[in-house]
Amino acid sequence: MAKKVLIVYAHQSSGSFNAAAKNAAVEVLTAQGCTVEVSDLYAMGFKASATAEDIKGEVMNAENFCYMKETKLAWEQGKLSDDITKEQSKLTEADLVIFQFPMYWFGVPAILKGWIDRVLTNGFAFSQEKRYSQGIFKDKMAMLSFTTGSLESMFSPTGINGDMNVTLWPLQNGILHYCGFQVLAPQIFWAPASAAAEDRKSMLESWRTRLQGLLEEKPLSFIPLDCFDEKAFQLKPDVHKKHASKEFGLTVGIHLNKPLPPHSQMKAGC
Amino acid sequence: MAKKVLIVYAHQSSGSFNAAAKNAAVEVLTAQGCTVEVSDLYAMGFKASATAEDIKGEVMNAENFCYMKETKLAWEQGKLSDDITKEQSKLTEADLVIFQFPMYWFGVPAILKGWIDRVLTNGFAFSQEKRYSQGIFKDKMAMLSFTTGSLESMFSPTGINGDMNVTLWPLQNGILHYCGFQVLAPQIFWAPASAAAEDRKSMLESWRTRLQGLLEEKPLSFIPLDCFDEKAFQLKPDVHKKHASKEFGLTVGIHLNKPLPPHSQMKAGC
Repeated sequence: MAKKVLIVYAHQSSGSFNAAAKNAAVEVLTAQGCTVEVSDLYAMGFKASATAEDIKGEVMNAENFCYMKETKLAWEQGKLSDDITKEQSKLTEADLVIFQFPMYWFGVPAILKGWIDRVLTNGFAFSQEKRYSQGIFKDKMAMLSFTTGSLESMFSPTGINGDMNVTLWPLQNGILHYCGFQVLAPQIFWAPASAAAEDRKSMLESWRTRLQGLLEEKPLSFIPLDCFDEKAFQLKPDVHKKHASKEFGLTVGIHLNKPLPPHSQMKAGC
Repeated sequence: MAKKVLIVYAHQSSGSFNAAAKNAAVEVLTAQGCTVEVSDLYAMGFKASATAEDIKGEVMNAENFCYMKETKLAWEQGKLSDDITKEQSKLTEADLVIFQFPMYWFGVPAILKGWIDRVLTNGFAFSQEKRYSQGIFKDKMAMLSFTTGSLESMFSPTGINGDMNVTLWPLQNGILHYCGFQVLAPQIFWAPASAAAEDRKSMLESWRTRLQGLLEEKPLSFIPLDCFDEKAFQLKPDVHKKHASKEFGLTVGIHLNKPLPPHSQMKAGC
């Protein structure tokens, strides 16, 4: 069956490299028979800040407003604002979500963080029971596709910005995998603004090539939820034992005080 | 001389634990003779998204708008929007900046990311030459003070969310240290929403105690800029050699494929 793709796109300009990367994804995936929807956050004037206006009508506790609790209840009661509900519908439909953005300050631009903070409502996107490998979106895929200002060498374990695998962990584990998504390897466009026109062109070409087989890719590896106990959410003793003699930790975050597994946030099967 | 403190505060409600933590900082630091200024982002309706409206008058290249280039030029020409200029003046005055927020999705809330994206303009907050240990704000201190939803055990190297040191790296190295700030150890309030009233009270008490000596604290350790070559920004061979026989890597990001130094983003001297 034809797959549905949602591209959450955060660049101000249609003349940008990010726009070209987004357009390439729309073209190649559409040509494959996918239905592709784009949420163009700047063009939509997407609201970034998490406020009481995200809830229609009265809030539960105005004195001590807790955004997560209030929006959980509003979601249950169908009282979330229309812009949030619309994005949630697109997400419910999607088989694959691609986040296309320029990296700002080792993370996503505020407007995209706003989409994450506001759309991934407690109850809709996760719950105490349904997260990580048991997450609500475990039958969906998601991936980051982004440009950097820095060169690739600067984001190595011996480079000044440090290992890109570390920088990706909070985003890929803490947001995408937390909601259950199968996380595809990131598409990183290293410093296109400082590259020659020819190199920018070849970056886009290799993205187009990757897009051909994207939906069949194996996702990155994370640790299944049942490897952790249900009280303190610590790795169970038998998993610990099984890995005691191994050279590397399990993931970037769950590293067991061992060296990080190389490329675990960059390539499938690492 | 009396020190100046800027608190960049991101919570919607004056009844929240974050408000109490912010108020404690204002009280204790003011009592010490500090001048304390608070940027209450939600109350200010602070704009989060980085757009062309941040520049007064015509932009340089509307067809292919690049936010970083455009705002660098606008800063040089005094054409940044008034809300940005005002925050930059506060920052210029400050000896210490405290970011007080609830952690959202392993990072800062979008409204605070917006402050970071928009206020830390290229030229004002960093340049190609002036960053990291040579950064523009190297005579200032900064720190994160935040609440989590998760328990502390979940954010350990064997816990389900992974090591908190990893999650803090992009924020503390990639934003604060990048601009040169001396980064004080973070103040982490673990899951106050699930804690008993008494425990919340004692968390605030220990924060008040820490605030007494905050301005005299030793900052976290990062690698000096001159340890990296000036072309690929790789660790120089002699630094490599010096650390070859050491058990741990240098920092969370610059880990040299060794185990991460324990607590390096959490405690000074690690």
